[in-house]
Amino acid sequence: MIYFDNSATTKPYPEALDTFLKVAQNYYANPSSIHRLGSQSEELLKRSRQQAANLLQVSDKDIIFTSGGSEGNNLAIKGIANYYKDRGKHIITTEIEHASSYLACKQLEKEGYEVTYLPVDNEGKISLDQLKQALRKDTILVSIIHVNNEVGTIQPISEVAALLQDKPTTLLHVDHVQGVGKVPLDLSQGNIDLCTISGHKFHGPKGTGLLFVRHGVTLSPLIAGGSQEQNRRAGTENLPGIAAMVKALRITLELKETHSRELKRHKEKLIQGLSSIEGITFHTPKNGSAPHIINISVKGLKAEVLVHALEEKEVYVSTKSACSSKDQQASRILLAMGVSDSDAKQAIRLSLSYQTTAEEVEQFLKIFKTQVEDLRQVMRS
Amino acid sequence: MIYFDNSATTKPYPEALDTFLKVAQNYYANPSSIHRLGSQSEELLKRSRQQAANLLQVSDKDIIFTSGGSEGNNLAIKGIANYYKDRGKHIITTEIEHASSYLACKQLEKEGYEVTYLPVDNEGKISLDQLKQALRKDTILVSIIHVNNEVGTIQPISEVAALLQDKPTTLLHVDHVQGVGKVPLDLSQGNIDLCTISGHKFHGPKGTGLLFVRHGVTLSPLIAGGSQEQNRRAGTENLPGIAAMVKALRITLELKETHSRELKRHKEKLIQGLSSIEGITFHTPKNGSAPHIINISVKGLKAEVLVHALEEKEVYVSTKSACSSKDQQASRILLAMGVSDSDAKQAIRLSLSYQTTAEEVEQFLKIFKTQVEDLRQVMRS
Repeated sequence: MIYFDNSATTKPYPEALDTFLKVAQNYYANPSSIHRLGSQSEELLKRSRQQAANLLQVSDKDIIFTSGGSEGNNLAIKGIANYYKDRGKHIITTEIEHASSYLACKQLEKEGYEVTYLPVDNEGKISLDQLKQALRKDTILVSIIHVNNEVGTIQPISEVAALLQDKPTTLLHVDHVQGVGKVPLDLSQGNIDLCTISGHKFHGPKGTGLLFVRHGVTLSPLIAGGSQEQNRRAGTENLPGIAAMVKALRITLELKETHSRELKRHKEKLIQGLSSIEGITFHTPKNGSAPHIINISVKGLKAEVLVHALEEKEVYVSTKSACSSKDQQASRILLAMGVSDSDAKQAIRLSLSYQTTAEEVEQFLKIFKTQVEDLRQVMRS
Repeated sequence: MIYFDNSATTKPYPEALDTFLKVAQNYYANPSSIHRLGSQSEELLKRSRQQAANLLQVSDKDIIFTSGGSEGNNLAIKGIANYYKDRGKHIITTEIEHASSYLACKQLEKEGYEVTYLPVDNEGKISLDQLKQALRKDTILVSIIHVNNEVGTIQPISEVAALLQDKPTTLLHVDHVQGVGKVPLDLSQGNIDLCTISGHKFHGPKGTGLLFVRHGVTLSPLIAGGSQEQNRRAGTENLPGIAAMVKALRITLELKETHSRELKRHKEKLIQGLSSIEGITFHTPKNGSAPHIINISVKGLKAEVLVHALEEKEVYVSTKSACSSKDQQASRILLAMGVSDSDAKQAIRLSLSYQTTAEEVEQFLKIFKTQVEDLRQVMRS
């Protein structure tokens, strides 16, 4: 089996599942309970938070554990919008955000907020000039996806942060869900105010995530109630999930040190191999894209047809983002990049991980070529 | 060890953890991915949803999987308030809700909603007459906790539902988190519109829950984004957690059939034994309370002191609700019931489960009496 759908979700590391199981069995008490069992859970929660903070080079006070990336993006965008609404009601984001950011902004529009959706060029990149022009006195938030989940384009986050440096009333949120462990993002500088990550994108358990919220920034909780997460996210902490996610983050960041070059080579090899096939268009830009995502259109083949032809050979890839793969429309991201509707409907995404091997890459290219040729022959006949 | 803190959280069933592990290992693909692995995950998700629906005697279309009880309560209350705001902005709830309902209402008040908090009598019960009087033309939601989490009082939900029968524009939400599997609640009648349950209160994994939303009722998502859960709760489904929660629900409802009487006997035995100790006040009413919760004050002993004295003997009980056990104030619930501030600060909660044994009950009473006597002696000397 060749699983090239790692941007949709990843296979959990066995070590992360071990951690989950041990914590669920041995630290089941509620961290909020004041008895000794509760204190032991609380202690483990603290250690997990500290470890996550160390790995991300931030303070442990700045971490809110969530149920995943969609919650993180909604909490960041709606939580900031609601808390700072007296300061202003203008938000800037992009046309190529993940659905959870995009629709959170759409909800806010209905509530009287104004949202500017920055366009992107044909590589999926925003323009800093356009961002500059869009900034207003009442802009309370700029929310940008770091690595686009469909095409892998990396946005110039540090330039955006620099641009906002002298605007203390405009906060910066980064959706780092696809970037974490793959493309560096420096949270230690203090010029990114909020940052979303999701556990299941780096071989942690589903239903886990965290939102970094820089010290001094406040937000209205999406889930109000108990005083967990410093009153910013109520609910009994999913301690097994949290500990397992932090374990997965540690492993991923270690693999980043040892396997980054290999992953890059895999991507280059794939691009090289795919380039030799007739009628392939690359939507992922050559430069400034993440090492694990390749988005292509295969002329004349509908994406769904190709996905199913590949699955016959136990090769798994996806059409656009998993979260919106079932609607029939062409990818909003690709359309924003100027790709034609018909090309966009032929787009598939290959997404790798540090577990991808050179053999898989080679095998994939063979199978892919055969399946594409076969399908084209069928269509001709 | 005697763990009598099951209302804070429960020890996961080994069978539920087995399910979690198997699903995490074998069904890790994203249910939204259109390839075969994704379809297998989607199929398991469907089966889990159908099983949950069967167990709760509702339609599978009426189930939204969430990350827990706090999310469920927030989604129900804020989701309904936001969606139906043009219909009216008045909500009725009670003074003894769980923090997640209570603070969701407090947030809504800041946004221009009017909330009536029904008082309770000294048994923790609301008055139907007062509810009737509070109802207005613009009341869009009545949200009531079924079994109070601190004292175990059961509210007259079917009478409330009957009262709302001829008011189709007033929806009824029930917080069933402490009741599920312990105190029957009939969702099949169609007169309850929304109902929250949480997985970790019945030996399922933390970070899981579901919100029942009756067919025909719409709500604004708290977490917008992908089209999961019929556009009502975005985010990659936590399939291992969902399957494990449904397994735990099934086991719990089976145990309800076989162990209900035993649990009731345990409670009676405890009440009997505790009654023989001088200076014990029962806050849990004799009639109309859940079979697994006993809340008492022990004259002269601060709750924290007693909790720690018991933990020395490996007996674990709690002061008020876990979600608010760390603030120093007396329980909001007990104060609403007319308990004095000093009595409320001496209140502890014992909470049982179907795993509680007769030996544990006997042992508990022995240890409890000894510890109370010892503490009192220390204080006298």
